Amino acid sequence: MNLSNTDLSRFWSPKVHELSPYVPGEQPKISNLVKLNTNENPYSPSPKALAAMEEQLGDLLRLYPDPNATALRQCLASYIGLTADQVFVGNGSDEVLAHTFQALLQHGQPILIPDISYSFYPVYCGLYSIEKCEVPLSEDLTINVSDYQQPNGGVILPNPNAPTGELLSLDSIRQLLTANANRVVVIDEAYIDFGGQSATQLVPEFDNLLVVQTLSKSRSLAGLRVGFAFGQAHLIEALERVKNSFNSYPLSHEAQAGAIAAIEDEDYFQYTCQANIAQREKLAGQLQALGFSMTNSHANFLFVTHETASAKDICAALRLTGIIVRHLTSSPRIDNYLRISIGSASECELLVQALKELL
Amino acid sequence: MNLSNTDLSRFWSPKVHELSPYVPGEQPKISNLVKLNTNENPYSPSPKALAAMEEQLGDLLRLYPDPNATALRQCLASYIGLTADQVFVGNGSDEVLAHTFQALLQHGQPILIPDISYSFYPVYCGLYSIEKCEVPLSEDLTINVSDYQQPNGGVILPNPNAPTGELLSLDSIRQLLTANANRVVVIDEAYIDFGGQSATQLVPEFDNLLVVQTLSKSRSLAGLRVGFAFGQAHLIEALERVKNSFNSYPLSHEAQAGAIAAIEDEDYFQYTCQANIAQREKLAGQLQALGFSMTNSHANFLFVTHETASAKDICAALRLTGIIVRHLTSSPRIDNYLRISIGSASECELLVQALKELL
Repeated sequence: MNLSNTDLSRFWSPKVHELSPYVPGEQPKISNLVKLNTNENPYSPSPKALAAMEEQLGDLLRLYPDPNATALRQCLASYIGLTADQVFVGNGSDEVLAHTFQALLQHGQPILIPDISYSFYPVYCGLYSIEKCEVPLSEDLTINVSDYQQPNGGVILPNPNAPTGELLSLDSIRQLLTANANRVVVIDEAYIDFGGQSATQLVPEFDNLLVVQTLSKSRSLAGLRVGFAFGQAHLIEALERVKNSFNSYPLSHEAQAGAIAAIEDEDYFQYTCQANIAQREKLAGQLQALGFSMTNSHANFLFVTHETASAKDICAALRLTGIIVRHLTSSPRIDNYLRISIGSASECELLVQALKELL
Repeated sequence: MNLSNTDLSRFWSPKVHELSPYVPGEQPKISNLVKLNTNENPYSPSPKALAAMEEQLGDLLRLYPDPNATALRQCLASYIGLTADQVFVGNGSDEVLAHTFQALLQHGQPILIPDISYSFYPVYCGLYSIEKCEVPLSEDLTINVSDYQQPNGGVILPNPNAPTGELLSLDSIRQLLTANANRVVVIDEAYIDFGGQSATQLVPEFDNLLVVQTLSKSRSLAGLRVGFAFGQAHLIEALERVKNSFNSYPLSHEAQAGAIAAIEDEDYFQYTCQANIAQREKLAGQLQALGFSMTNSHANFLFVTHETASAKDICAALRLTGIIVRHLTSSPRIDNYLRISIGSASECELLVQALKELL
């Protein structure tokens, strides 16, 4: 709806006209599609998480949940080796990120973000009137932390980066934190469990580090909506103040109980992460044999480009065979790439067969 | 934590220092308390809603939910007699209200709110830098809509009002909408199902009306976190633009499916609403016999004051007997009142017995 020329737009706050909302990957309502477009985990959630959620279904739901999610924060703190006042939880990591932009990144100076990165970051900048400075990835589509040293209002980047999957070492993160000691540096670790080393271990050392994680990828719970942040207590306090000025009870009983049980089921977590990694390496080899090259992904997706066929054509042709992958067109540098989520073994096999026939 | 004099506060966005976050009613972790402090419904959620939620617990949870909650919005639209583009859904009505303040009430002029009302409204004003003009309730603690005619950036009020439970007629709402034809008027109907007439029927007629509702009270689902707004499509579009700049997927599979089943279980809904109303009228009579007077509540709570005993003392004494009620101290005009949620028949009996012994 475009209301800019109608009378009715007078009801909108002026800001609303300027927004460019985020467009999530398609959640198709057709079944039997091979869905490799939104980086969901092909493995089911932990059976223990499902059992814990089932236990919540009863009279309890007439009551408000714990607004402070005390048990969940304590569980995460123990798991990571921090204290509960160093943990924040929200309705998916997107909500956690939104509060982060408002609570910690509004300093009247542009924040630094990679030019090719999670495309929600510029949207948050728009929502909270934060200027951004997009720092170009290197020629090989990796992040060079020495490019993040100009004056700024904060730094945010995913590690591994999306949609490239390229990983920064902890040494690089440390360098980034040291170079920006007076600003908050947010490391968005949505994909860290697929082969990276988490920066959460740097929290006690750096008072400017906030690490964001999610249950949506490595814990197979995209449908539950739970995300976290870890940082020293003064950073978490800022998030709590914004959260408690926005919505007292963002996490249902279900979400709190399911999250605790998922975190506690370490064996299942390790098993499914390793299986995803093995499948990623296998698929990478198969795609290389078909003429694809790719970034060095440490996430649950591959970011690939073909030597002759265009990404746009491959994406459209795959769709006709019932396979959905993501073609991101946000930057000309990557518009001949496809982001392909790591599916189950059979889904990956269907993909490889379809590509063999297409190419 | 007060960081204003420490170095670490330099990491906070300046806005964070100014916030006065909302403090929700206590959610005690002790069991066996008679909890009459947060207006939860004493009846369990609809068994059909619980069954629908149980069906969601499985492999499906590894996938993102429908970001647009299409089925739920269609269900609500049919139920109310509107179209899906006239319905917005969020993570509890608090999130819906937050987006409403940002999307529709920022016009550089003070918004009008009752001076005694839902205490989250001033908090949202703080979060979004919206000035407010608090319009005093009449001497009898009711809202007089003719007091809402000065220039403003919008109007928001609960109907029935909280914490008084006093109800405005649809004629008064109509008068309010007509007098503020160039600003959005938000009617927050968290308690409407306990004896009021909803303003949703005025949506087709008024392009400036937004009606907010929740599953937390009359549907016994405070623990699920689902709220709604109804308004003409241009108002809903503003909310969608903000929501999609904040969090694509606020409602889990569980929340969407549970909400649909709860709305569809009309018989259970009518039965529990009528039972709450009957219990309210019975409790009102019992309390009057004990020397309490009260506002004319159309909500699932009573707002009472005693002829001799102070509200503060009664609240503290009840607490010692394991009964929690709410003593709101936000305004001197009501600091000798208690807000008492309508509990089950046995909870209300325990309350009456305890009061008989105390007074």
